[in-house]
Amino acid sequence: MECDPIGTVHTPFETTSEAPRQGIHDDAAGVLDLDPAYREGLRGFDGDRIVVVWWADRADRSVLALDRDPDRGVFTSRSPARPNPVCVTACSVASVDTAAGRLRLRGVDMADGSPVIDLKAPLD
Amino acid sequence: MECDPIGTVHTPFETTSEAPRQGIHDDAAGVLDLDPAYREGLRGFDGDRIVVVWWADRADRSVLALDRDPDRGVFTSRSPARPNPVCVTACSVASVDTAAGRLRLRGVDMADGSPVIDLKAPLD
Repeated sequence: MECDPIGTVHTPFETTSEAPRQGIHDDAAGVLDLDPAYREGLRGFDGDRIVVVWWADRADRSVLALDRDPDRGVFTSRSPARPNPVCVTACSVASVDTAAGRLRLRGVDMADGSPVIDLKAPLD
Repeated sequence: MECDPIGTVHTPFETTSEAPRQGIHDDAAGVLDLDPAYREGLRGFDGDRIVVVWWADRADRSVLALDRDPDRGVFTSRSPARPNPVCVTACSVASVDTAAGRLRLRGVDMADGSPVIDLKAPLD
């Protein structure tokens, strides 16, 4: 199952270790740029929250136990280190430019430059 | 970016069109079977909620506009039809057998037989 990047997210964090554990508890600002081919997918967006699905491209995919607690498996956590490093972060939307495919976000927790693979409306 | 299936989810829904729009609003029961190689990742799981990340393998990946409203892009929705059909469903856990890698879930909205690519703890 092959995922294609739809864009890139820019954040203050060089690695996921530096990032807050869950973006929503922090207020870090980031910028998400959609690739031109995918900008149409944002048409009509008028929400103040969005779910960013991103790929932790520097994460260790070989681990099944938590580094900080080897008695617990990775599926009991939200750590980016896991077999498929698909991460899900609910962010606030500070501004959106649908024509340019650019979202200014708050509450980011991605490593800078991480590929984005999907955007979704938040759950009601 | 290649995703490997870590297991399969069995639900009452033959297609995602039959499934409730958001599992959490419904109470449908499903069974998630982890592949043997990934069962260790569930060790220590004792929660009553889990986030299932699954792959809508029958979804149309070519669409950028919503079928039901062509003026809105797919990134304004949670429809499974999108460039990377990665879906995220928060489920209740009715029972868990970590040795067998089997979770009995409530609130499923996946099409029967969908590949699972990740499991996560819910956000606090």
